[in-house]
Amino acid sequence: MAAVDIGVGLLGYGTVGSAVSRLLAENADEIERATGHRIRVVRALVRDPAKERSYPAADGVLTGEFAAIRDDPAVDLVAEVMGGLDPAGSYVRDLLRAGKPVVSANKQLVAREGPELFALASESGVQLRFEASVCAAIPVVKVLRESLVATNVHRILGIVNGTTNFVLSHMERGGSYAEALAEAQSLGYAEADPSDDVSGADAAAKMAILATVAFGSRVLLEDVQRTGITEVGPEHVAAAASFGMAVRLVGIATLVDGAVDVRVQPAFVERAHPLAGVDGAFNAVMLQGDAIREITLGGPGAGGLETASAVVADLVSIVGTSGTGFLQNDACWRELERLDPAAWRSPFYVRLDVADRPGVLGQVAATLAAREVSIAQLVQHLHGGRAALDLVLHDAPLGAVEAALDELGAQPDVLAPPFLAPVVAEAA
Amino acid sequence: MAAVDIGVGLLGYGTVGSAVSRLLAENADEIERATGHRIRVVRALVRDPAKERSYPAADGVLTGEFAAIRDDPAVDLVAEVMGGLDPAGSYVRDLLRAGKPVVSANKQLVAREGPELFALASESGVQLRFEASVCAAIPVVKVLRESLVATNVHRILGIVNGTTNFVLSHMERGGSYAEALAEAQSLGYAEADPSDDVSGADAAAKMAILATVAFGSRVLLEDVQRTGITEVGPEHVAAAASFGMAVRLVGIATLVDGAVDVRVQPAFVERAHPLAGVDGAFNAVMLQGDAIREITLGGPGAGGLETASAVVADLVSIVGTSGTGFLQNDACWRELERLDPAAWRSPFYVRLDVADRPGVLGQVAATLAAREVSIAQLVQHLHGGRAALDLVLHDAPLGAVEAALDELGAQPDVLAPPFLAPVVAEAA
Repeated sequence: MAAVDIGVGLLGYGTVGSAVSRLLAENADEIERATGHRIRVVRALVRDPAKERSYPAADGVLTGEFAAIRDDPAVDLVAEVMGGLDPAGSYVRDLLRAGKPVVSANKQLVAREGPELFALASESGVQLRFEASVCAAIPVVKVLRESLVATNVHRILGIVNGTTNFVLSHMERGGSYAEALAEAQSLGYAEADPSDDVSGADAAAKMAILATVAFGSRVLLEDVQRTGITEVGPEHVAAAASFGMAVRLVGIATLVDGAVDVRVQPAFVERAHPLAGVDGAFNAVMLQGDAIREITLGGPGAGGLETASAVVADLVSIVGTSGTGFLQNDACWRELERLDPAAWRSPFYVRLDVADRPGVLGQVAATLAAREVSIAQLVQHLHGGRAALDLVLHDAPLGAVEAALDELGAQPDVLAPPFLAPVVAEAA
Repeated sequence: MAAVDIGVGLLGYGTVGSAVSRLLAENADEIERATGHRIRVVRALVRDPAKERSYPAADGVLTGEFAAIRDDPAVDLVAEVMGGLDPAGSYVRDLLRAGKPVVSANKQLVAREGPELFALASESGVQLRFEASVCAAIPVVKVLRESLVATNVHRILGIVNGTTNFVLSHMERGGSYAEALAEAQSLGYAEADPSDDVSGADAAAKMAILATVAFGSRVLLEDVQRTGITEVGPEHVAAAASFGMAVRLVGIATLVDGAVDVRVQPAFVERAHPLAGVDGAFNAVMLQGDAIREITLGGPGAGGLETASAVVADLVSIVGTSGTGFLQNDACWRELERLDPAAWRSPFYVRLDVADRPGVLGQVAATLAAREVSIAQLVQHLHGGRAALDLVLHDAPLGAVEAALDELGAQPDVLAPPFLAPVVAEAA
């Protein structure tokens, strides 16, 4: 085997960066067997080179100067593991312009600035890989691009945020949203400020990246419709259980007749569906395509070591395929239109708080029927002059369901805004 | 992009071969974007070139002569999709000697003749890929070799045979083994002669291949200890349900202190474990490693189109990485010893049919305790002078459990040979 050394530069040497350095060192033999090259970290950008590190870098590796990485001819490729949009974005752009391949673990950067970054990579003829930006070590990007190259993936279902999945799983065992969130925070699964997770923004960035790769058309963060989990109450979790379902924050990317729809929202997942079994902080992504029916990938979707494992796999893939043109291009090659959200079809769950008066149920049924929305299951709960209706609706366009609910919401007998969630049915 | 044509030869043009041809044609643009090359089938070996085909080959493609493929300079790489050991094995060896890269979907060939085949590939400096030989379109080989290059995978758990999983899932809904098998046969999930599946031989070949790739040490079919599902009765399925478990045919490959153990047998899988949710003819493989905790891949593990999808992915990967040395080498680079099966540890389920006499339970407990095997759960059923004991044992060496059961089996109060199955506990 060749004894050539390949030098890696790191932007950041925190939990992920130091784990990348350690994994490259500990697996140097395996990597040499796979690529014919020995790969090691030769430079790492940090704020304070004097600070103590959990996995210390070799002498002279840490630097406070970005230019020391960009301009060092011994740095053959770079992993961006610092996070944030700025200065990470301008660093990555500079590196691509300088002809250095880049691996990024930064979902916000890839989801927001993808077009410019991939254009720069193509201009320079270098690779930009981003496996670690989605679900850490779960290799969904590689599988989509390489293993499913001959299948038209037309639907992606994903539980891609561990914090919200932990909260919703916890609520199943009893307790309110606030209690579950507090538990997640005490266990380190949620940040002190959890808004990026609970709002669905984190999941939306990952779904934008996956949809882009799967459909070959750019989906930006702003293209993803999202609803977070803050409005999910114990009554919804209980209703789901009564229907043999589980509430999960699900990302759904769909390609319908050449139009793309990408959304993240609480969904009612049938118990027999593979995503319903995803418990706690785990993630899973189901890919549905013509030639494969469905492939589901699951595992821990976060963690420093898990993220580092994906970064190293990308570095190894770049080294292994350099000079071949294999997958160096942007995954986007076409511009698909957005599906009108009103035309997006699904079965749905609806919760209605109504006055306990004769005729209310008939009014609900008639309003839905007028929009050609039909009811699959209905459960009525009575408590002290009020009634709650839990409905499962058959497959219908979102627009028709929303219009019916708007109409019902304006009725005096409907006492609170309706709660609406798609139902994810067991794969046929 | 380059307009270079890459010619593919097929050995076999049945369900899989014709699907490979179709997928290559239908996805030619995607493949050119990924590789810079246009790939098409230029020759296919069949017994009868005149027979009608579901996806007809172009004029002049079908041939009855193997030499027409081996010696054709327009054939740049070959997919073996004919199955069987002979003549498939000699064809593949001839092709590798002739310097043509090969993709094989043939698990029996890879699991039995791997050493010779990979040695020939290395000598000729060409790739031999085999993703489709394990679980069709589920990309477990690529994930192990490329995505998990920097994680030491030390355990693989797999449901890798759809026929037996269908039968066992069906038995959960009531019915005997014979009834479930008949149902599987009527639906096309089991062959008229199902022995390869129900004996565990098919699963053993797949686990041998996966263990070889994961551990870097050759595991042959004969190295895999296997027990089929023919002895699984409704009483075992009912006992599993009463313990919150499901009976599944599970392949388990373990690396313990540098020694390898690979086995396939009916196992009791806790309901919360990801493998317990694998229903019907589906497959799933869980990979456990240092840096990733666990990654689970699931999907349909069989089917002509699904297999063809994996074959095409391998063809594309070969074209994309040719000339780079990336992963061209045999996955085996070391020779690990076999673990003494008696030293293999697991929790276990045991079923004992015993005489309903005072003291029998005490004798069972004492015999297990004498081997330092402790009981986690015990349920006794009485019916007409006989008793059945369902036991769940704590983690113990297989040798100690088997010795205790041998001793018990020799007692007059034990009325039938004990039934033993490992318990697959929820991932920690």
